[in-house]
Amino acid sequence: MKRFALLLLTAGLTLSLPAQDGPRQNINIPDIPGYHTLKGDFHMHTVFSDGLVWPELRVIEAWQEGLDVIALTDHVEYQPNKDDVGDDRNRPYVLAADKAKELGLLLIRGGEITRKMPPGHSNALFLKDVNKLDTANWQDAFAEAGKQGAFVFWNHPGWKAQQPDTTLWFDEHTRLLEQGLIQGIEIVNYREYYPEAFAWALEKNLTIMGNSDIHGSIFQEYISSGPVKRPLTLVFARERSVEGVKSALKEGNTAVLFDGNLYGRQEWLKALFAACVGQEVNAAASGSEQHSIFLTNYSDIDFRLIPGKDAMKNHLIYPLDLPAHSTIVLSVTPRQLGGPGKLSLPLGFTVDNMFVAPDQKLEVTIRF
Amino acid sequence: MKRFALLLLTAGLTLSLPAQDGPRQNINIPDIPGYHTLKGDFHMHTVFSDGLVWPELRVIEAWQEGLDVIALTDHVEYQPNKDDVGDDRNRPYVLAADKAKELGLLLIRGGEITRKMPPGHSNALFLKDVNKLDTANWQDAFAEAGKQGAFVFWNHPGWKAQQPDTTLWFDEHTRLLEQGLIQGIEIVNYREYYPEAFAWALEKNLTIMGNSDIHGSIFQEYISSGPVKRPLTLVFARERSVEGVKSALKEGNTAVLFDGNLYGRQEWLKALFAACVGQEVNAAASGSEQHSIFLTNYSDIDFRLIPGKDAMKNHLIYPLDLPAHSTIVLSVTPRQLGGPGKLSLPLGFTVDNMFVAPDQKLEVTIRF
Amino acid sequence: MKRFALLLLTAGLTLSLPAQDGPRQNINIPDIPGYHTLKGDFHMHTVFSDGLVWPELRVIEAWQEGLDVIALTDHVEYQPNKDDVGDDRNRPYVLAADKAKELGLLLIRGGEITRKMPPGHSNALFLKDVNKLDTANWQDAFAEAGKQGAFVFWNHPGWKAQQPDTTLWFDEHTRLLEQGLIQGIEIVNYREYYPEAFAWALEKNLTIMGNSDIHGSIFQEYISSGPVKRPLTLVFARERSVEGVKSALKEGNTAVLFDGNLYGRQEWLKALFAACVGQEVNAAASGSEQHSIFLTNYSDIDFRLIPGKDAMKNHLIYPLDLPAHSTIVLSVTPRQLGGPGKLSLPLGFTVDNMFVAPDQKLEVTIRF
Amino acid sequence: MKRFALLLLTAGLTLSLPAQDGPRQNINIPDIPGYHTLKGDFHMHTVFSDGLVWPELRVIEAWQEGLDVIALTDHVEYQPNKDDVGDDRNRPYVLAADKAKELGLLLIRGGEITRKMPPGHSNALFLKDVNKLDTANWQDAFAEAGKQGAFVFWNHPGWKAQQPDTTLWFDEHTRLLEQGLIQGIEIVNYREYYPEAFAWALEKNLTIMGNSDIHGSIFQEYISSGPVKRPLTLVFARERSVEGVKSALKEGNTAVLFDGNLYGRQEWLKALFAACVGQEVNAAASGSEQHSIFLTNYSDIDFRLIPGKDAMKNHLIYPLDLPAHSTIVLSVTPRQLGGPGKLSLPLGFTVDNMFVAPDQKLEVTIRF
Repeated sequence: MKRFALLLLTAGLTLSLPAQDGPRQNINIPDIPGYHTLKGDFHMHTVFSDGLVWPELRVIEAWQEGLDVIALTDHVEYQPNKDDVGDDRNRPYVLAADKAKELGLLLIRGGEITRKMPPGHSNALFLKDVNKLDTANWQDAFAEAGKQGAFVFWNHPGWKAQQPDTTLWFDEHTRLLEQGLIQGIEIVNYREYYPEAFAWALEKNLTIMGNSDIHGSIFQEYISSGPVKRPLTLVFARERSVEGVKSALKEGNTAVLFDGNLYGRQEWLKALFAACVGQEVNAAASGSEQHSIFLTNYSDIDFRLIPGKDAMKNHLIYPLDLPAHSTIVLSVTPRQLGGPGKLSLPLGFTVDNMFVAPDQKLEVTIRF
Repeated sequence: MKRFALLLLTAGLTLSLPAQDGPRQNINIPDIPGYHTLKGDFHMHTVFSDGLVWPELRVIEAWQEGLDVIALTDHVEYQPNKDDVGDDRNRPYVLAADKAKELGLLLIRGGEITRKMPPGHSNALFLKDVNKLDTANWQDAFAEAGKQGAFVFWNHPGWKAQQPDTTLWFDEHTRLLEQGLIQGIEIVNYREYYPEAFAWALEKNLTIMGNSDIHGSIFQEYISSGPVKRPLTLVFARERSVEGVKSALKEGNTAVLFDGNLYGRQEWLKALFAACVGQEVNAAASGSEQHSIFLTNYSDIDFRLIPGKDAMKNHLIYPLDLPAHSTIVLSVTPRQLGGPGKLSLPLGFTVDNMFVAPDQKLEVTIRF
Repeated sequence: MKRFALLLLTAGLTLSLPAQDGPRQNINIPDIPGYHTLKGDFHMHTVFSDGLVWPELRVIEAWQEGLDVIALTDHVEYQPNKDDVGDDRNRPYVLAADKAKELGLLLIRGGEITRKMPPGHSNALFLKDVNKLDTANWQDAFAEAGKQGAFVFWNHPGWKAQQPDTTLWFDEHTRLLEQGLIQGIEIVNYREYYPEAFAWALEKNLTIMGNSDIHGSIFQEYISSGPVKRPLTLVFARERSVEGVKSALKEGNTAVLFDGNLYGRQEWLKALFAACVGQEVNAAASGSEQHSIFLTNYSDIDFRLIPGKDAMKNHLIYPLDLPAHSTIVLSVTPRQLGGPGKLSLPLGFTVDNMFVAPDQKLEVTIRF
Repeated sequence: MKRFALLLLTAGLTLSLPAQDGPRQNINIPDIPGYHTLKGDFHMHTVFSDGLVWPELRVIEAWQEGLDVIALTDHVEYQPNKDDVGDDRNRPYVLAADKAKELGLLLIRGGEITRKMPPGHSNALFLKDVNKLDTANWQDAFAEAGKQGAFVFWNHPGWKAQQPDTTLWFDEHTRLLEQGLIQGIEIVNYREYYPEAFAWALEKNLTIMGNSDIHGSIFQEYISSGPVKRPLTLVFARERSVEGVKSALKEGNTAVLFDGNLYGRQEWLKALFAACVGQEVNAAASGSEQHSIFLTNYSDIDFRLIPGKDAMKNHLIYPLDLPAHSTIVLSVTPRQLGGPGKLSLPLGFTVDNMFVAPDQKLEVTIRF
């Protein structure tokens, strides 16, 4: 009833009511100069493999949660519900396409090449016919994906079920990379972050991905069970379209947002921080004795700044928390900063939740 | 991956990992003397009619949300996904049964008799074979439900799509009632409350029901979109079993919790309030001048007490909010209540969120 | 320690650390053309009358909660802490002024003329010397406020302690109004809304006020105890300054936000709704069969639209919830709206939470 | 108005209304055998030193937040508001005592001996006359505290303003310890945890304390600004009285709860875990193939269990999250655990948020 309301008359006439799919909670992560910042999830399952929801629900969930683009990536080789729903691997996309169009959500046809390690599981996106990836050996599946012009990335490379002790890069991955048959890698899957994969991505020029790999309901798995939301792959795209996303993924224009942390190449994170946080000196609040510096976070992401050595020397000894949509004030006395005429002292901070490498955080400068 | 994890090896061997379905958030609504207070939802859909989730997910959702008992009630006559999933109306129950057993959730086989008004839609629970309800005329469907010993209730009697202007009781309902083929009525469905249905339930001795009629994901529809949770039918059952629920429903031992309000017959609501709220006089806090009366709410339900005339004369002029798991204190000075030796003044209050009839709230007495 | 950190050395030397007063959670209620939408609270108490906090904390609380302007209005005639803190009625403003300047919060010197009914309690803002309002009879206090150029409003006109049975307008109020000694009226105080006062405000051209009258901690009273935040007087000011606020209050350029509802004159609420909610037709989501209309709420206020008669005829029979920072979609089929070439059908809606009079809600038109 | 309502009549008559101080949100941390688990905060400031609230508000805040016992500990040697409120160091206790009695909250008279390092700041509790601690040299202040039978603990031993580089234990502390003039130490203050202090506490048999050191409003500092609540000293007391608390503190019967973590001696944490978490095998959910083990968390504390080696061998490879008031289920197949007749396999887990030493977590055994 109600939202998904269809009034059935026994005479057979069906009267359609205007569908209302509940509100979309917009995510405020700003665009960066020259690029749209699209919020994507490129790894999800439906009842057509081992997921627990109908394809259309993935679209509704993603739209409501504020995403811009998703890929349906059911297992190509594993269909436990086959007796009930058949084994046409293109069916999920077809069943979800109308709702995606109605909601203006970008929908990508994909599939998960599900093999033992090596090479493990991989997602192929932008496929034309997913069924053709159902091949006897995995090499043929990757070749077919390549033939269809797909963007392919290695899934959950540190998954303990396949890499119980250490997270290894195999020769098979090297070969796929050299053949151009793999272009990306998940550094976050579901609730796990793989620092090794992040290092490989930077080193081997792989596109950084972070996805939910959701099987149940997204709201049940993440939102109702605590503050951790599903991982997002932020895609910096020159245009908001499936083609725009494809280009961006192939060029490596991504970052990952998970559990309050951002992971990505320095140039993207730097641009994103600059788009999220602004600085202001409130004249009304300044006198000869003291000045107030205001930092405002315009985004939905909480930031934390760790003072560098020079800042600490100026008595900024505690971390600065700058939650989403908040402003903090720093009262600066001339004594500390060299007098009213010398307000432009640059002080370095580390952004505690922005990782430009597994062991390295983004550094920014704020002028006082 | 992860929770619903099945590790697929290409060799075909499947190794099962211990399933973990996320935590169950227990609902604290206490038992009442002689009865378990079971939390139920007896109206829900899956992909086997026009729902958007697999039957097993309904079990997982309900368990995680703290429910004790659910019924799957897909439309008997309406199966838009038939080409994909077939039309066996017993299939949803079968597909959900193992998970329900594993989690200790009571699962009821049901179906929604989906006809135009009159008599509109009705749910039949505790069926043996749902397929047999697919009859040409609705009278036969109700007769078959009766033959199978079902408990049947009228769904969303005030649904505007079927009752656009006024909510009417038809002769057809009178006949079903007289034949013993309908025993309950929804007074709450999804996000709507029908006061007319509540009045009929009291007048015609129908069991009061409040259900979600969920089609999408329960967490998406309710929990992520605001503080209003799914309606619950509270079942006061002498034993925690499917049989215990059946007896309780047939005897009318229910109340409905929706959007912070409770609806039910006076005897059940009175017992429930007494189980939820306790009173204490803290000796340490009492002197010759003043006494402190403590009221504690031990339940997850927020209560609000409206002072009656005598209470207002004693200067209790504001409503008393008693949120879930909170204690409030009332400071009583002897002057107001006749001196330290006269502390047992009974004062009447109305429980603002407990309805014993559409226009009547539960009245309780607190001694000061 | 920490935030309010002052390192005491026994030698007597005090070393000041940069103060950090915690983040300000910005309130997103947009400006309207020609005006700043300032968030204000013009009624609050400190330890200098019967409040429980130091004046400076009022400034910090308000800044952190996202307010732009506050008035300290301790009782002129009632000082239960006099033996501890003295009775200089200008002291609260003085003790709070530095912090307000540092944070860029507009601070107004005020006092509450606290008399029995009639005329009850009234706040005088923009005073020069609050002590001079301590007069034997109340007429002199109002006259003194007038002499100081104050803006004066009647507080909690429906407070049951002073108006136990009905909310009355007295001859004394008529006289004050005629003398120009009262220019505004609280229609919301603490957690109470007075519809009679709203009607008087519209009828007698009084400025509409809604204030907290806070005595304890604002976070304890409102934020920690549920979703109801303190009432706000929205001030539409041509400039962001104490003078700008004074002009706006004297001109009646206000609205009140309380418990999700807005109260105000039609012209202000209409402009505010237009600034909060935008409409878009997503071309990508439109085909020959169906069009998608998107409504986006850019503000922190939840809106609910009730379809009018024409909308209901077009099957929009349910209220449209448009929560803060959300987008909803309406799928429009040509059949309903006269075909793809006829998309500009205007349909009327009532904004359920915007009151332009006690019994009248704002009406808006949306084109489909 | 409202809660702290006092109706002033100009004639001078004051009519007192029954005070209602808002609901107390009860904290559910269970008692342990033989002891009450009291929730305490033993370090807080008011306007009588450099705090921003009136003493009575500390009582109201603590009661509403669910605490059982607090100490007011204004600086003995630092009174920036002296010109406004005087310098009687016993005044805060006197001004708060009536409200504490009314609410049944245990209130302790204390003071903060505020000296440069060494020995830094220390709190003395259960004082008879705080003014007598205002001595020229700090040795005399500690001696006086000892004379009054006080319980004394070292505050924020790792505070960067006094210990900028490393956290040091000074000879002065050794001497105080040897003289029996210091019996406890804060291992958590405000938002900081000091592992060095935790190690010293275990090594030197000091009572473990964790306190807020609150200066502003408790709700503003903690509750409104995120999920981190104020640190609590859990006191395991044989009776619920000021004397009971004194004995427990002198005997070292405490643990600290901060930011979801518990710190304490092994015996206390073990007893607390056993009181919080229960295990059940649901017979209905067990068959020949599979058994369901239910773990229920009855407390307000979220727990996380990390599987030990043996558990991991049995495929329990992921941490088990057991949020407050939740139940989790573990499905155990006979193959894993040796068949239906061998269900009592003990498996070891580490409780991820219970620290029995700076680098050591509590270990527990669960039988499968």
